[in-house]
Amino acid sequence: MAAALAPVVSLRFKPQSAVRLLSAYTKTNPRNFPTTSQTRTVILHFPQLYQPLTPPFIFFGVGAARPRRRCFCTAISGALSSGEAIEKPKPEFFSAETGDKVGEFRKRLRVVDIKGGPDEGLDRLGQTLAVKGWVRTLRVQSSVIFIEVNDGSCLSNMQCVMNSDADGYDQVESGSITTGASVSIQGTLVASQGSKQKVELKVLKIVTVGKSDPSFPIQKKRVSREFLRTKAHLRPRTNTFGAVARVRNALAYATHKFFQENGFVWISSPIITASDCEGAGEQFCVTTLIPSSREATDSTVDAIPKAKDGLIDWSQDFFGKPAFLTVSGQLNAETYATALSDVYTFGPTFRAENSNTSRHLAEFWMIEPELAFADLNDDMACATAYLQYVVTYILENCKEDMEFFNTWIEKGIINRLSDVAEKNFVQLTYTDAVELLLRANKKFEFPVKWGCDLQSEHERYITEVAFGGCPVIIRDYPKDIKAFYMRRNDDGKTVAAMDMLVPRVGELIGGSQREERLEYLEERLDDLKLSKDSYWWYLDLRRYGSVPHAGFGLGFERLVQFATGIDNIRDAIPFPRTPGSAEF
Amino acid sequence: MAAALAPVVSLRFKPQSAVRLLSAYTKTNPRNFPTTSQTRTVILHFPQLYQPLTPPFIFFGVGAARPRRRCFCTAISGALSSGEAIEKPKPEFFSAETGDKVGEFRKRLRVVDIKGGPDEGLDRLGQTLAVKGWVRTLRVQSSVIFIEVNDGSCLSNMQCVMNSDADGYDQVESGSITTGASVSIQGTLVASQGSKQKVELKVLKIVTVGKSDPSFPIQKKRVSREFLRTKAHLRPRTNTFGAVARVRNALAYATHKFFQENGFVWISSPIITASDCEGAGEQFCVTTLIPSSREATDSTVDAIPKAKDGLIDWSQDFFGKPAFLTVSGQLNAETYATALSDVYTFGPTFRAENSNTSRHLAEFWMIEPELAFADLNDDMACATAYLQYVVTYILENCKEDMEFFNTWIEKGIINRLSDVAEKNFVQLTYTDAVELLLRANKKFEFPVKWGCDLQSEHERYITEVAFGGCPVIIRDYPKDIKAFYMRRNDDGKTVAAMDMLVPRVGELIGGSQREERLEYLEERLDDLKLSKDSYWWYLDLRRYGSVPHAGFGLGFERLVQFATGIDNIRDAIPFPRTPGSAEF
Repeated sequence: MAAALAPVVSLRFKPQSAVRLLSAYTKTNPRNFPTTSQTRTVILHFPQLYQPLTPPFIFFGVGAARPRRRCFCTAISGALSSGEAIEKPKPEFFSAETGDKVGEFRKRLRVVDIKGGPDEGLDRLGQTLAVKGWVRTLRVQSSVIFIEVNDGSCLSNMQCVMNSDADGYDQVESGSITTGASVSIQGTLVASQGSKQKVELKVLKIVTVGKSDPSFPIQKKRVSREFLRTKAHLRPRTNTFGAVARVRNALAYATHKFFQENGFVWISSPIITASDCEGAGEQFCVTTLIPSSREATDSTVDAIPKAKDGLIDWSQDFFGKPAFLTVSGQLNAETYATALSDVYTFGPTFRAENSNTSRHLAEFWMIEPELAFADLNDDMACATAYLQYVVTYILENCKEDMEFFNTWIEKGIINRLSDVAEKNFVQLTYTDAVELLLRANKKFEFPVKWGCDLQSEHERYITEVAFGGCPVIIRDYPKDIKAFYMRRNDDGKTVAAMDMLVPRVGELIGGSQREERLEYLEERLDDLKLSKDSYWWYLDLRRYGSVPHAGFGLGFERLVQFATGIDNIRDAIPFPRTPGSAEF
Repeated sequence: MAAALAPVVSLRFKPQSAVRLLSAYTKTNPRNFPTTSQTRTVILHFPQLYQPLTPPFIFFGVGAARPRRRCFCTAISGALSSGEAIEKPKPEFFSAETGDKVGEFRKRLRVVDIKGGPDEGLDRLGQTLAVKGWVRTLRVQSSVIFIEVNDGSCLSNMQCVMNSDADGYDQVESGSITTGASVSIQGTLVASQGSKQKVELKVLKIVTVGKSDPSFPIQKKRVSREFLRTKAHLRPRTNTFGAVARVRNALAYATHKFFQENGFVWISSPIITASDCEGAGEQFCVTTLIPSSREATDSTVDAIPKAKDGLIDWSQDFFGKPAFLTVSGQLNAETYATALSDVYTFGPTFRAENSNTSRHLAEFWMIEPELAFADLNDDMACATAYLQYVVTYILENCKEDMEFFNTWIEKGIINRLSDVAEKNFVQLTYTDAVELLLRANKKFEFPVKWGCDLQSEHERYITEVAFGGCPVIIRDYPKDIKAFYMRRNDDGKTVAAMDMLVPRVGELIGGSQREERLEYLEERLDDLKLSKDSYWWYLDLRRYGSVPHAGFGLGFERLVQFATGIDNIRDAIPFPRTPGSAEF
């Protein structure tokens, strides 16, 4: 059984063949040959002459800083026939100049490279190409077999059409090529008869790389997302989770691009913290007082070191005192913003809240920009520009995946996102929002009055009904329902806070101008009975060259939900962590 | 005292002025005016007419997806004088169409914008500009005062030259403007008399934004890096740590660029894991059995829930069983690589090892690419191309900071890095490396024999002496000193592993081809007495469409050390976590 699942012999790596190198093989595309300017040296070793020091038959490309798409096999023959110098390896072993050199990095030819262009592959008609990926479906129609191969580079499969004269056809008959199996296919790109794609691959040769056991849990029939959460290691092989992974990736990259292009510096705020400054929300304790990994299930409570009065002896813990997983990098980001001006964090944060909802994770990624010499207006403008940038980015760069979501996950999502990218965002004060709700011709479950926190029914009314689907920013909240660090407004009752609400998701972004005035901040800490000593370094930022500054936080998985229409936040992150669940 | 530290009144935000908006003020640069095509609507509210719903005097830009550098004050007058339509705000309050719109995000004018171009500021001579930042030094020379202002956007300060007739000169006399204070300066850019810069700012007006208490710990005199670690919240205001932060940022962005441009998908591997698959290195336990944050220091050992036999009752913990901080995202990355082909992680990882060295952190960021349909040669080529890409990126994009490191931190670092970017990397097998060391005319502290792990004295000899400073990749290590998942070579004794060694830092990258053959992997787990049940999902990847794949891991802070010459890894991350230390 185990032997049956092993890759077939012909694909086991031998030193003389690197699998990846074969994949970009093409007969008819000479412009893919490396030019002389790209290739500085091509060295060919003939190991039988220089045993035992050089592994047989090594090709050397060149260590250029930027990899280029390249056809390897042809690269060699091209270089050889073009008469480039072939440097002989030095037979003397231990001279300081010898040693084999590392080959050049080459991108594999991917399905998106073939079908992702404006011509959807028609520009490559007639080329002989190699595709590697996983079989999604196999259909037999009289004498022709259709194999849909996906390599994850895009939603589209490469439709491969095979007749019985193709090399390797017997593997279909013997049942090696089934849903879930990995294959390597060489063929000629031809115009497709079908309406679903412009091109298809006429199979010349097929090789089973790895069979798929018949127990493969993701067969063609639809499987529920609940079920797929128990198969988190296989679910990226489905259309939905592949698309979510690609769009999530695009959102992350667009996030970096936006901030980098605007001069922000990425800061890694700490994950473990023994600082007393946190405390928003429940925290996870991080400790080595409990023996690690393999023995943890056997450890007794009594083995935990005790100080006097039966207290836990934190002096023996790794950090010498209680340490926790961070709930926010904001305070740390402020220290860098007041030195480098504009910074952002993008890292994991944690909540040990026992919330089993479709909107909460115990571990999630947060983006927290912090702007120096900035007020709440700048903050709102930055949040708006950021959201519009990343939404525009995925609409432009993930067209196929977004069409998929538009058809299968949330009808109309493309229009909804286009509106966000193009429309002006609305802002109103909390006080005006309350008045709007009080005058609304609608009965709410939670009654509204000034000073209360807005519930999601209120937020939804505002963004979906009152402003017809526009994103809305509510600002200037009562100080008693907001955090201590938010800047006091002149009215003495409100703070310069803002929440951005978007249709469907509700609150997507929360931010504020920070209290930069030392005396007000100390007063606020006193009011809330927080220890000024604990905040010594945070207060230092106000003691030494304080500046007006502002920032916001955005939960990245909420953004993924917003941008894909995925209902449950557990499907917006590869390996969700929730109460009772930290598998994989 | 507290009042004295507050910003002066003129800079307190009033609704009608956003501080940031003033900073890009320029009189002489009309091409900075927004063009009509950029600005769709400019709305001007006159609040006295529309009380109380519109805050006084709000400017609206337009929610374009990409922010542009823009001069705000001139933008308005420019738009007005160009005759663009001025939309009147709707006085009716609660119609669905009303509400204020969010202004446009504008970049502040930064010192790098002035001095960072090829002309080093000469292209802006005669312009009236505003600069905001922190005072680094103040020098009085007869009747002229030189103020060096840094805003963190680059290493360079803006030298500001002030005569006694400048507006705000009295603040110098009253002692408000000292090292560490934040200031806003408006002035005219003139050619500099000094040799250290081409331009300087002739001060028209200076405003103290925030004073600096005389206790400011980073005065002009040199302070040690050890001392600065105790001031991690202020150290980014020094030349060294500002430069490290910018180069670290550039390395991170270059990392994303490299992988994105090569079609890799960023995957967030989980931070908390209850999977039994980890176990390389000591792990931190993550728990809620110990009460959170504020009460932790008072909690007793007996409060921890017990199961029978005095064992810790993990069923009452957040995840229902012991959970830990991840030591690597590789196994998780493999699940996505075998669906999306090429992926990478970039996130924090943890080691609870009691290592108080200059090379170890308890919390550090790792980059772990994983390539499908790839072998060890592809892996080495990818690692090489990656390193050359990011090194080239900082040499091209962080010139000033790299010159600083070259002068003050590690002489010759630019040449060393240029070599890495341009030279071929050498590869040799472990077996050849051992033979090379045995034949070396040098006595090592740790004797060498086949099968032993290479010590750093060996690694340094190989890269610094034997190959004269070239990065070296050693491959095909004995299987007994490497991890279970590495692919067995045909000799049965070695595995397809590789370590990349670089001068000064030693091992920078470690990678391998993964064992994709189910029967070999199971055999290896058995050999090492690891439970196959624990690895069920990892084995599934070999059960369903297994493919040859390979990857590597790189400690990001080691890369920062390598790229900046910074000796101690605690200075390569904003807030280092080490035994006994998790402050800030």
